[in-house]
Amino acid sequence: MNILLTLRILGALLLFLSGALLLPLPFSWYYHDGAASCFLWSATVSFVCGLLLFRFCRSSRDLSVREGFAVVTFGWSFYALFGALPFIFTGVASPLDAIFETMSGFTTTGSTILTAIEGLPESLLLWRALTHWLGGMGIIVLSLAILPMLGVGGMQLFKAEVPGPTADRLKPRIQDTAKLLWGVYVLLTGLETMLLMAGGMSFYEALCHAFATLATGGFSTRNASVAAYDSAYIDGVITLFMFLAGVNFSLHYQALRGRLREFYRNEEFLFYLCLTAGTTILLVLINHGSVYNSLFDNLRYSAFQTVSILTTTGFGTADYETWPVIAQYLLVFLMFVGGCAGSTGGGMKVARILLIFKHAQVQLFRLIHPKAVRLVKLGNRPVDREVMQSILGFFALYMGLFVVASFLVAASGVDLVSSGAAVIATLSNIGPGLGSVGPVDNFAHIPAFGKGVLIVCMLMGRLELFTVLVLFLPTFWRK
Amino acid sequence: MNILLTLRILGALLLFLSGALLLPLPFSWYYHDGAASCFLWSATVSFVCGLLLFRFCRSSRDLSVREGFAVVTFGWSFYALFGALPFIFTGVASPLDAIFETMSGFTTTGSTILTAIEGLPESLLLWRALTHWLGGMGIIVLSLAILPMLGVGGMQLFKAEVPGPTADRLKPRIQDTAKLLWGVYVLLTGLETMLLMAGGMSFYEALCHAFATLATGGFSTRNASVAAYDSAYIDGVITLFMFLAGVNFSLHYQALRGRLREFYRNEEFLFYLCLTAGTTILLVLINHGSVYNSLFDNLRYSAFQTVSILTTTGFGTADYETWPVIAQYLLVFLMFVGGCAGSTGGGMKVARILLIFKHAQVQLFRLIHPKAVRLVKLGNRPVDREVMQSILGFFALYMGLFVVASFLVAASGVDLVSSGAAVIATLSNIGPGLGSVGPVDNFAHIPAFGKGVLIVCMLMGRLELFTVLVLFLPTFWRK
Repeated sequence: MNILLTLRILGALLLFLSGALLLPLPFSWYYHDGAASCFLWSATVSFVCGLLLFRFCRSSRDLSVREGFAVVTFGWSFYALFGALPFIFTGVASPLDAIFETMSGFTTTGSTILTAIEGLPESLLLWRALTHWLGGMGIIVLSLAILPMLGVGGMQLFKAEVPGPTADRLKPRIQDTAKLLWGVYVLLTGLETMLLMAGGMSFYEALCHAFATLATGGFSTRNASVAAYDSAYIDGVITLFMFLAGVNFSLHYQALRGRLREFYRNEEFLFYLCLTAGTTILLVLINHGSVYNSLFDNLRYSAFQTVSILTTTGFGTADYETWPVIAQYLLVFLMFVGGCAGSTGGGMKVARILLIFKHAQVQLFRLIHPKAVRLVKLGNRPVDREVMQSILGFFALYMGLFVVASFLVAASGVDLVSSGAAVIATLSNIGPGLGSVGPVDNFAHIPAFGKGVLIVCMLMGRLELFTVLVLFLPTFWRK
Repeated sequence: MNILLTLRILGALLLFLSGALLLPLPFSWYYHDGAASCFLWSATVSFVCGLLLFRFCRSSRDLSVREGFAVVTFGWSFYALFGALPFIFTGVASPLDAIFETMSGFTTTGSTILTAIEGLPESLLLWRALTHWLGGMGIIVLSLAILPMLGVGGMQLFKAEVPGPTADRLKPRIQDTAKLLWGVYVLLTGLETMLLMAGGMSFYEALCHAFATLATGGFSTRNASVAAYDSAYIDGVITLFMFLAGVNFSLHYQALRGRLREFYRNEEFLFYLCLTAGTTILLVLINHGSVYNSLFDNLRYSAFQTVSILTTTGFGTADYETWPVIAQYLLVFLMFVGGCAGSTGGGMKVARILLIFKHAQVQLFRLIHPKAVRLVKLGNRPVDREVMQSILGFFALYMGLFVVASFLVAASGVDLVSSGAAVIATLSNIGPGLGSVGPVDNFAHIPAFGKGVLIVCMLMGRLELFTVLVLFLPTFWRK
């Protein structure tokens, strides 16, 4: 491990963050919300710390795999720490709560400890949405360029197929991929902002919701989330963009270059489409009569909740805890699945679930035909045995961490259903769960120890588990 | 698939069952419980059906892998069907309930639909315990001789290492293994019966409880289960024998031959010991003061419940639903783990959980040392990649079936916690769960559709999933 190089990169990231911390200033001035000085102070602290790290940590050696893991894990952690400063300086939250909120932001989770959102400074809520958006930017690069190179959890499969130098060195490849995919990300954000403004939102509200949608985050500027607008048009727009944000961004890039048929050739996308449509139809059938009488309302709310949970956004327009038990059961199942690989969505990813299902089929087949060679395929490409095993291992680890973390949260004094739901809501980076952390509740009441566990869950879930866990190996730190 | 040969073997199995159905007769005569004619009729029906199948289905071809799967799955199903006759003829249960009860018996689950056990004929309760014991006999052979040959879910690892001809043909190997291991099984049953009689139980009660213990079944002759005896001695004896029944029976065989140190050289056994001791200690700490004031009582009840759940027996001496939430959480975790491979215990098996944990470690290590060759080991033997992948696939399938079955049971009208608990209680062949199917409740109130799903869960869980699922492949039935 080259600690100096790692610190230097972290310094550079902090310098970038200090710039981002200035973005809410115009909103603060426009709305006279009195939070401008808090942002200036936060930016200053980040700038000074960043500069110190960047200037005084130098190393001639090149970036290797280990520093890659360290930069990613500590990068997200530093952003959560320094990004929390505006919440602390404005006195809105205690340091622990503030870190919970920004970790939830940068990991695009959307779980909140804020109980009265509408009274807060506009600039602070914009910052909250911006943490989502910046986190989403990071995730796109992470999942399509960095993690595939590091070989985490079978992510090799999902390397972005964008043109550019195919050299093995990390830097040029990441930069190229980032530029192209961020273009798509910015474009979609701009488009949603305009469509939401057309639906009657102010520029500020539209921007905040677009940030939270494209990042599949879920922070809203209203206590009642998207339900506050009570508009079928806004629900429709957000449903559509949540769905798009849950798709692999390299597919969007291909589509913009005119290759629309890539969507229909991508097996993960097709499965994602089936999951969305299938769950929506099931929910409509379950809720028919018992919850909604009008088919239009039923479809509107069922589709919104399905897409919001599956893409791990976590916006809400209905309290699904009042729905029949099996409807809730379906949503809990979706919580584990999550979005497509290469999207901003969390969870285990649609492709992994699909491959695990296919693997079971192949295993069964091989019991009867032990000598037959049959590989698991995604699309037309056979999946490497090594990759398949990584994916199965990832699944087992995900479930294992779910069990351990739920136990720890329960030990902090939370009931059985709520602790399990809180863990999956954070580990899959969704936002709301069930029980006392349901869609109309928040995480403020979770005891401090439980909040700490959930902060780690958000980070681990977002970074595909291994990226964080690898730092706990003694061999990682050896020369 | 050679259907004639399969039917012929099933006929032979039914002839054996008709003999077993006569065993409760002496108890019926002794206790004058009036059920003797019901057993005679049941035996007659089984005998006639068995004889017809055995006589008229002939095939010159030899037993192959496919017939192996069919015989195992249909064998267990036939036993549940014909073994249910005494419950139907005595009018104690409806056909569906009777099949639920005997499937629960032969799969050594121990979930019951009977609400008033103490008023039933003694011979019927003996038969109920005997279904456990016969099922346990089947399981020992299945897990140590048949499934390893069929290559199901990584069971290759756990082939019994008993002396005997090592020919590849199924028959001699199975017979030899069976004889030796059944000897151990009978010996331990006899020993426990004597020890329980020394504690004040009648021969009949002691025998029933020994049958249910060694099979890790859990049917008792009392409504209150083992709690009815309120004896620390009896609790201790049953705790010890449940623990022994959860150990790989080939280890017991080695121990009887004087090789006691095999216990200490077996990594799965050591992990099982740690799990038992660790959970007991944690439960004692959690229950201290809040549930039990006396350390002796605390240890007695915590150890009993831990061993009963981990070995998937399901006897109860305390209502753990009144324990703190985290205590329940620990027990739910154990429900997924189950006993050692090659024991009569259900669940995913200790060895699989241990190997999945080790696999995660190796995966982490390989992220930093991509070129290093490091294999997962059990004991000192490296685990074949193929086997490791089977085990990971088994884990994923187990969780997948848990999700699907819980959804179906919830759809039949059961609440969220109870449906999940009912499924894991049956899939892992434990018996009691949580919520409305907790340790002081029973399964009588589950709607018919839900009972059907749970019957399938018991069968699938007991036969390591793949054995049953493979029958659903169209290619299985082709010539």
